[in-house]
Amino acid sequence: MGLVVQKYGGSSVADAEGIKRVAKRIVEAKKNGNQVVVVVSAMGDTTDELIDLAQEVSPIPSGREFDMLLTAGERISMALLAMAIKNLGHEAQSFTGSQAGVITDSVHNKARIIDVTPGRIKTSVDEGNIAIVAGFQGVSQDKKDITTLGRGGSDTTAVALAAALDADVCEIYTDVDGVFTADPRVVKKARKIDWISFEDMLELASSGSKVLLHRCVEYARRYNIPIHVRSSFSGLRGTWVSNEPQGDQPMEQAIISGVAHDTSEAKVTVVGVPDKPGEAATIFRAIADSEVNIDMVVQNVSAASTGLTDISFTLPKDEGRKAVTALEKTKASVGFDSLRYDDQIAKISLVGAGMKTNPGVTATFFEALSNAGVNIELISTSEIRISVVTRADDVKEAVQAVHSAFGLDSESDEAVVYGGTGR
Amino acid sequence: MGLVVQKYGGSSVADAEGIKRVAKRIVEAKKNGNQVVVVVSAMGDTTDELIDLAQEVSPIPSGREFDMLLTAGERISMALLAMAIKNLGHEAQSFTGSQAGVITDSVHNKARIIDVTPGRIKTSVDEGNIAIVAGFQGVSQDKKDITTLGRGGSDTTAVALAAALDADVCEIYTDVDGVFTADPRVVKKARKIDWISFEDMLELASSGSKVLLHRCVEYARRYNIPIHVRSSFSGLRGTWVSNEPQGDQPMEQAIISGVAHDTSEAKVTVVGVPDKPGEAATIFRAIADSEVNIDMVVQNVSAASTGLTDISFTLPKDEGRKAVTALEKTKASVGFDSLRYDDQIAKISLVGAGMKTNPGVTATFFEALSNAGVNIELISTSEIRISVVTRADDVKEAVQAVHSAFGLDSESDEAVVYGGTGR
Repeated sequence: MGLVVQKYGGSSVADAEGIKRVAKRIVEAKKNGNQVVVVVSAMGDTTDELIDLAQEVSPIPSGREFDMLLTAGERISMALLAMAIKNLGHEAQSFTGSQAGVITDSVHNKARIIDVTPGRIKTSVDEGNIAIVAGFQGVSQDKKDITTLGRGGSDTTAVALAAALDADVCEIYTDVDGVFTADPRVVKKARKIDWISFEDMLELASSGSKVLLHRCVEYARRYNIPIHVRSSFSGLRGTWVSNEPQGDQPMEQAIISGVAHDTSEAKVTVVGVPDKPGEAATIFRAIADSEVNIDMVVQNVSAASTGLTDISFTLPKDEGRKAVTALEKTKASVGFDSLRYDDQIAKISLVGAGMKTNPGVTATFFEALSNAGVNIELISTSEIRISVVTRADDVKEAVQAVHSAFGLDSESDEAVVYGGTGR
Repeated sequence: MGLVVQKYGGSSVADAEGIKRVAKRIVEAKKNGNQVVVVVSAMGDTTDELIDLAQEVSPIPSGREFDMLLTAGERISMALLAMAIKNLGHEAQSFTGSQAGVITDSVHNKARIIDVTPGRIKTSVDEGNIAIVAGFQGVSQDKKDITTLGRGGSDTTAVALAAALDADVCEIYTDVDGVFTADPRVVKKARKIDWISFEDMLELASSGSKVLLHRCVEYARRYNIPIHVRSSFSGLRGTWVSNEPQGDQPMEQAIISGVAHDTSEAKVTVVGVPDKPGEAATIFRAIADSEVNIDMVVQNVSAASTGLTDISFTLPKDEGRKAVTALEKTKASVGFDSLRYDDQIAKISLVGAGMKTNPGVTATFFEALSNAGVNIELISTSEIRISVVTRADDVKEAVQAVHSAFGLDSESDEAVVYGGTGR
């Protein structure tokens, strides 16, 4: 007998039928002798509908009130889920983030969890109840105001509760069968990964894989909580994310975990930067001050004839305008020639802890792209990841070519349904 | 400068336009130099939609979870209202019933307020904010579970907060211009009442007037909080409900406050009850044990020849089956002949403190009904009220006849829009 934390996303509880299906799955876990704590997101489109309403009354809604509004979504899904479970003859109680002891800072709309004090949850499950907890929400430590955790918040709630309750596993139920070696919408032969280390999963998440967000994996790694990503529809064994393989999982990790791609970024090139100390610092200080998060940064060696160099970086498209505006203000002090902004790019990343000790991975990667006729615009590497920037139009060919080159293609032709997770 | 508590019902905040209109009205009150606390119900049909969802997942939803579910409704409306006010350049903060300190007992779906500890509300308005509070909801004293107050709960929240904050007035905004001398849908010439005493308002409320519920008026009377019932659409002066007329209100109350009618009740007659001690007690104990609330009770003198009497009472139609079932079980012990159940009745009530000292009111009342050809089936009186039961078909003629007979008809022919309030 153990303690299991399960998380169900909005697509799993999109309507009454979905809620009843999920209720049955939860009851199964309880019948198997586990204590069960469930974290649930808002139903399907609820959040979008609430956002639309907010836009109708105020163009720039207050952060505090926006959080108060959005948290109504989980309140609805969790109460309905508890009712559905009770209707199956099992005891269930729902709890808001605040009641569950999810304590956050005061940054509305993207609060960070400071502490979890799950006393009421512990009492509830010890009394034999299934505890249903609202994902995505908490209460601020200082003002006792309702907060939300931002994107991927429900996954983070689940992992944080699992850590605070010392759970045996945190099961993340979604609408796909697990983490794949590539996005199955792009690569038909993508394979489900049985086990992946926290480190590789972190790299995949920051390279564009949307099944788990970086923040949630980071939290799980810090507290060493095994995550099991699986489908709420099929109920099949999914992907385990943990420090070490468990049970009958393969003992040795594959050289390559997978190929991720990301078309949500844009590229900015600062052309003709004088190659002297302090110039790059000025540029990136300006960007940091405008609160833009950047991703890859590449600087070429300067041309000997001119003493000028180019600096390129990628960033979320949403933040492109802010960054360009901030950079234009530094033009005089830095003395660069011009700015180029390009949002028709894709980032392709190959991730795998095995590449550290396997020479030739980088060469194989570039050869695959070359054979597919894909031009590389930027390159950036870490110990367990290689990323390149290509034209957005080339993304499909690039991912498929790399996936095949590293022997990741599945032999079956089963179609896989694949979608993003909610919050 | 004073402290005003305003309450807006679901029909006043049914959509984004309604919320923006209400926001303007609230800001006016603030600009007039008042501290303003607003209690708001769920938007239009939200509650009904949530109830439908609950029915889809569970035929008999758990009380605790049902309350958790329904309270999402006010969470949405209050957050949107706070946003709309901030959008007009004024500071606003929304608070759940729990945050506002509305402490209740643990009876889910119809909790009673035990205490109000409005510390956060007080701080918020002292800091210059308009405080928006979720109506209809509270938190249970013992288990810290979310509760709802049942029908008319938002009005009760408003009055309870007004009492705890020692407010100058509790303004109940609704979709009608105030309390009328009769239901304007039935009596075209019904007049708006400028001022009415708590006592007369209590009698009207328990006789079928739906503008204010008995419970809310009772609370206001206990703590002597003047209520101002008015329209959120017209903004006109409405009806004041208080101990004594205030300001330029008429100093002397009319003899008759108004005529109320109620078609939501049914009549049960227990035929042929032996006229001996204890029989009535047995009958009404059986009804009380089945938790049915009864209204009028009438027993005729027994016929000398048989020693048998009939006992009639009225009760909500919804509870008819329960009462009849309970009574049938007592048939053997009481020894009555038969039960008659009739749900085609109406109750017509004339209310006015003046009737105590004005002889002839009863006679005029019966004459008016007789002239209109309306037959009287039951009669029940209190010091400030006369009620009769008639056929449901006769209700319109009966109310109009009584309204005219007591000189309540308005001289203007203005049409009045009239509807019930939400929760």
